Amino acid sequence: MITITKPVDLQNKALSLKREGKKIGLVPTMGFLHEGHMSLIGESKKKTDLTIVTIFVNPTQFGENEDYGKYPRDLERDKNLLVELGTDILFTPDSDDIYGDDYHTYINVEELSDIMCGKSRPIHFKGVCTIVNKLFNLAQPDIAFFGKKDYQQYVIIKRMSKDLNIPIDIAGCPIIREKDGLAMSSRNKYLSDSERKSAKLIYKTLKDSADKIKEGISDIETLCKKSKKTLLKDENIGKVDYYDFRDPENLSLLNGTRKQKEILIATAVWVGSTRLIDNIVIRL
Amino acid sequence: MITITKPVDLQNKALSLKREGKKIGLVPTMGFLHEGHMSLIGESKKKTDLTIVTIFVNPTQFGENEDYGKYPRDLERDKNLLVELGTDILFTPDSDDIYGDDYHTYINVEELSDIMCGKSRPIHFKGVCTIVNKLFNLAQPDIAFFGKKDYQQYVIIKRMSKDLNIPIDIAGCPIIREKDGLAMSSRNKYLSDSERKSAKLIYKTLKDSADKIKEGISDIETLCKKSKKTLLKDENIGKVDYYDFRDPENLSLLNGTRKQKEILIATAVWVGSTRLIDNIVIRL
Repeated sequence: MITITKPVDLQNKALSLKREGKKIGLVPTMGFLHEGHMSLIGESKKKTDLTIVTIFVNPTQFGENEDYGKYPRDLERDKNLLVELGTDILFTPDSDDIYGDDYHTYINVEELSDIMCGKSRPIHFKGVCTIVNKLFNLAQPDIAFFGKKDYQQYVIIKRMSKDLNIPIDIAGCPIIREKDGLAMSSRNKYLSDSERKSAKLIYKTLKDSADKIKEGISDIETLCKKSKKTLLKDENIGKVDYYDFRDPENLSLLNGTRKQKEILIATAVWVGSTRLIDNIVIRL
Repeated sequence: MITITKPVDLQNKALSLKREGKKIGLVPTMGFLHEGHMSLIGESKKKTDLTIVTIFVNPTQFGENEDYGKYPRDLERDKNLLVELGTDILFTPDSDDIYGDDYHTYINVEELSDIMCGKSRPIHFKGVCTIVNKLFNLAQPDIAFFGKKDYQQYVIIKRMSKDLNIPIDIAGCPIIREKDGLAMSSRNKYLSDSERKSAKLIYKTLKDSADKIKEGISDIETLCKKSKKTLLKDENIGKVDYYDFRDPENLSLLNGTRKQKEILIATAVWVGSTRLIDNIVIRL
């Protein structure tokens, strides 16, 4: 595995690989890798000639009171994992090399960035789109791989790519879960033992909602209220930022009477001081 | 010359040219071509293997009360000119194919887009950056050519490209002028005979300012006031949006005491109901 830290070096390498006709896969991560990331790398290795993994905790997608400073980092452990997985290139830039002194340019996917997670994290997706666009330009991938745990991010990046005519396939990969159903996330590390037990309730509740919809229940409003109540009954769960039933293509909010073929149920839940997200897509 | 109207066709063509190792030049225009555009195409032909010219009057860079509807168009005349100049590919898309129904993504170069022309045209540069980024992704150029009459646009596009790590050289080409000094612009067509005579005062005033600075005058504030007064004395000139002395690299406003090696003098002037821009860069 080659490790690159300077943006210009990655771009020169990628452009030269493209000239050789190589098909490049990109897996952008913030590091502290788990099986979710590993599955993305596995997909990339299956579908491309060469896999570039990036590890960069991107400051512009964190709000002022968020966990940028304490976001878990373990580069040595990550590097060993990436070598084992057969990663070709690791890109781990410094923030100063990504955003210079005089940095001014941001990409915003309007409307889609203002709902769901965007409501409580107003600058988040602008930061995500900007860094992902930069990584696209640096790594020159044919396919970029994103996990569907961050479902809204996946939809927004697909939308950005389509809107800006970016010639890159955006591949969304399934959520990888712990045995008890908790979606894998680097942020799970923040949970105390007792919070970890409560956290499994998130997937359990999503699954209950999905089952009820499959059974034919169409009163989404009541289902939503009950699900929130179930979650908030847990002593470690203080707040549910949202618990939404939406169109998985365009994220439009569903009401009770509408009959969809596919429904996204997505939620953001505070377990102690940790904000976790999860979702299920049902095909009826 | 090949004429292409569908974005996907241009992108497929460009990607295949890139695979062949061709060096592509891009000249983005809004059509109604004049000698300014012709000089950009000439530069592209000198420096690349293949020149793509785009003609697209981009709706997202016009404000509600601006001249999108009446912007001059003459595609047949433009096509003949482009063939004469040896253009390889002309791209003339429909607006619906560039911005679909569900279009959401915009690029903004913050701060630089809020000054000078951005003050009176608040959404202008967001629209410019968005369309230029899209054209970059569609045409896959190695070099893109822009006229320095739109000096702020040139600086903003250079900034966008640097910030987003876009691997394209941004070439700024000199202003082409009429015999009496008026900068060539498709909007000059709007001027009545009497307004056309007044319009030459813009360059004359800029040149007077430049001469005075070269002679050693350093009181920029007084120079600015006098220049505006000179312009406004003309019966056809109703308003000067700005008359600024700035750093040509980062567009920061200069004050009288600062000693710069290079100074941009830029102005936007209303001649009748036509808003014209022009500038001079002085090297001391």
